Amino acid sequence: MAPIITLLTDFGSDGPYVGAMKGAILSINPQATIVDLTHDVPPGDVFQGAFLLFSAISTFPADAIHLAVVDPGVGSNRRPIALQTERGMFVAPDNGLLSFVVGASGRSGAGSQSRAPEPYSLEDGQRVVHLLEPRFWRHPVSRTFHGRDIFAPVAAHLSLGAGLDDLGNAVDQILAFPLPHAVTTGPGEIVGEVVFVDRFGNLVTCIRDEDVQTSEVRVEIGGRTIDGLSLSYEEGAGLLAIFGSGGLLEIAVTNGSASRVLGAGVGTLVRVRAE
Amino acid sequence: MAPIITLLTDFGSDGPYVGAMKGAILSINPQATIVDLTHDVPPGDVFQGAFLLFSAISTFPADAIHLAVVDPGVGSNRRPIALQTERGMFVAPDNGLLSFVVGASGRSGAGSQSRAPEPYSLEDGQRVVHLLEPRFWRHPVSRTFHGRDIFAPVAAHLSLGAGLDDLGNAVDQILAFPLPHAVTTGPGEIVGEVVFVDRFGNLVTCIRDEDVQTSEVRVEIGGRTIDGLSLSYEEGAGLLAIFGSGGLLEIAVTNGSASRVLGAGVGTLVRVRAE
Amino acid sequence: MAPIITLLTDFGSDGPYVGAMKGAILSINPQATIVDLTHDVPPGDVFQGAFLLFSAISTFPADAIHLAVVDPGVGSNRRPIALQTERGMFVAPDNGLLSFVVGASGRSGAGSQSRAPEPYSLEDGQRVVHLLEPRFWRHPVSRTFHGRDIFAPVAAHLSLGAGLDDLGNAVDQILAFPLPHAVTTGPGEIVGEVVFVDRFGNLVTCIRDEDVQTSEVRVEIGGRTIDGLSLSYEEGAGLLAIFGSGGLLEIAVTNGSASRVLGAGVGTLVRVRAE
Repeated sequence: MAPIITLLTDFGSDGPYVGAMKGAILSINPQATIVDLTHDVPPGDVFQGAFLLFSAISTFPADAIHLAVVDPGVGSNRRPIALQTERGMFVAPDNGLLSFVVGASGRSGAGSQSRAPEPYSLEDGQRVVHLLEPRFWRHPVSRTFHGRDIFAPVAAHLSLGAGLDDLGNAVDQILAFPLPHAVTTGPGEIVGEVVFVDRFGNLVTCIRDEDVQTSEVRVEIGGRTIDGLSLSYEEGAGLLAIFGSGGLLEIAVTNGSASRVLGAGVGTLVRVRAE
Repeated sequence: MAPIITLLTDFGSDGPYVGAMKGAILSINPQATIVDLTHDVPPGDVFQGAFLLFSAISTFPADAIHLAVVDPGVGSNRRPIALQTERGMFVAPDNGLLSFVVGASGRSGAGSQSRAPEPYSLEDGQRVVHLLEPRFWRHPVSRTFHGRDIFAPVAAHLSLGAGLDDLGNAVDQILAFPLPHAVTTGPGEIVGEVVFVDRFGNLVTCIRDEDVQTSEVRVEIGGRTIDGLSLSYEEGAGLLAIFGSGGLLEIAVTNGSASRVLGAGVGTLVRVRAE
Repeated sequence: MAPIITLLTDFGSDGPYVGAMKGAILSINPQATIVDLTHDVPPGDVFQGAFLLFSAISTFPADAIHLAVVDPGVGSNRRPIALQTERGMFVAPDNGLLSFVVGASGRSGAGSQSRAPEPYSLEDGQRVVHLLEPRFWRHPVSRTFHGRDIFAPVAAHLSLGAGLDDLGNAVDQILAFPLPHAVTTGPGEIVGEVVFVDRFGNLVTCIRDEDVQTSEVRVEIGGRTIDGLSLSYEEGAGLLAIFGSGGLLEIAVTNGSASRVLGAGVGTLVRVRAE
């Protein structure tokens, strides 16, 4: 069976970098099944990459290998790592890109505008190695493109059966963003924030369905209020609130863009009150 | 042999949705050969998706499975369907997305600006089932992402050999847009419309080569006239008319964009007169 | 083993053309491993396509087949060709798209704004045939889409073992752009030019690491000067110069876009002086 290696980067689809990573994989394991998740993470936006990675990989078989490169610190002292979890194997820089995957406990509240990754201690079922074994890399190793020279070759060797422990030294902590989560701000009232805006202009928030106990709610965002929850994007006219495919509250506009209508984006606050 | 599953959506390439669909397929059939057609159908534009699907799949082997999701009505009462034709198998929402594939007879004339799908009765060689069997779906089924939870799993099960009749109930009609076609407006004169604008700014019309009996023609569009037909995009200077790779009349500009030069787009009328 | 066929085009990802090429390949060889390099070469920009092709394919195994279509002259008398080199097999129009791959000697100096391809005589280890054998094509052959009808089918037949000589007639010369290269303009001083701007706004120049003998340099571009070379994009604040992953000098801005900061793009001159 051809092992699956997924790719998520901020390299864009218009340059040579994605192709070069694919070649680096296929020259080591020509049998690998390479799957593009996205290459359009906003340049250098590790937090957005972390959210997209988590959202995109949830359906994959547990033996898939996920190669994620949003790496503004390439060539600096940030560590290259590989992470084994029950969801699959991940190869990435240690800069917060695996925050959602490891489920970094949400110590930050809503509206945390200045996000920085912090040390996160691994939980049971999570193993990480600091990638230090040059024999699994492509040589010479450039200073600016570890995606091609370290991450892709390591993923390819993992797909051929290399053991995690052969790749480097086990570590106990990685860097992770404290994940945004809903905060209780009053009786029956929580506040969360937008964490992702999709192509349709839907505003995906950090508020999970288990955070909201009733569908009799009033939702406030950008000075507008929405009464009740919808069950489809076509239900109701105009602005609506709906729990989306990832179990997160979304603000949407029927046949339109909530982002444009509200002038809202990542970080915009959303308040939910039981009626 | 790895069965082919193509993907066409309006999900864009910058979100997690395409990756999630691929994972849903591969977790059911890791041997599937997934082929991206495009994920950049204009958001919610079912008509454009229908044209692109038809144009992109014409070269595929007849045993390929085509998974198409442009689905603004997800979660409403629009039906999920699978269609078997001589061109291949299709899995899609029943909202007009398969109009060109089934060859919906063109009851509408040129310039039909307000397009709505209408009931279309299947022809010989076309079989459709309403997807109703939850055992071929991914659970829990979300209300907002049937691409991941219904369409992708069904396509994957079809690639493993599931029979069309196992998936749901046979139906006789689907929704289809009446396809735009050239209309005779006088002796030796027809009028059609632009149905697609490609990346080069070429204006692809609904006028087929069999609609035009002679190359001695005058073409009128946007107040400009073009005399005769060209045989390549480089032949002649400036604006030209040429029958393109799908057998449809195109208006193009050598090393330029006809769309920009003419300020024309989908729906713009084109008149062809025999000289 | 599934043979690798890579694709590089200027067709964009939003039209039906890429899908149609993939179908044309898979209908001939369903076992082919199709790898997208990029489809976002600027429309009709053969020079950029040539640079991107060269940059993207360097990591692939030598038995890969590279299908490249940036073909504004489709339907005119430009020749379709296949090229065998030590780097792999290439199928493309003969319009300069293989210039970097064949390593066309740089007869032009820096700042050559008006680039036109010139006859280039093949070197040892390079074999080219003019594709003339219609039995390896898809029929009927359109005048506007040889990517689908000639190039893709030929690549698919090569992947099935067709011999280069069966495809057409051997030729001695192809068209190639004289490649830009650094020019000595004084003692310890060279001038090159920007040849590619990536998604991050990094300005990739034609100046190779072997052109610069010391890291004690002053770099001048767009009226700004940079002292010394950096070892990572994060090192130093603001504007920096660094040798990138292809061994070429890049001008970058930490967490920003050098292209935007400098108002620079392809063709902008860069001067390097030993200090």
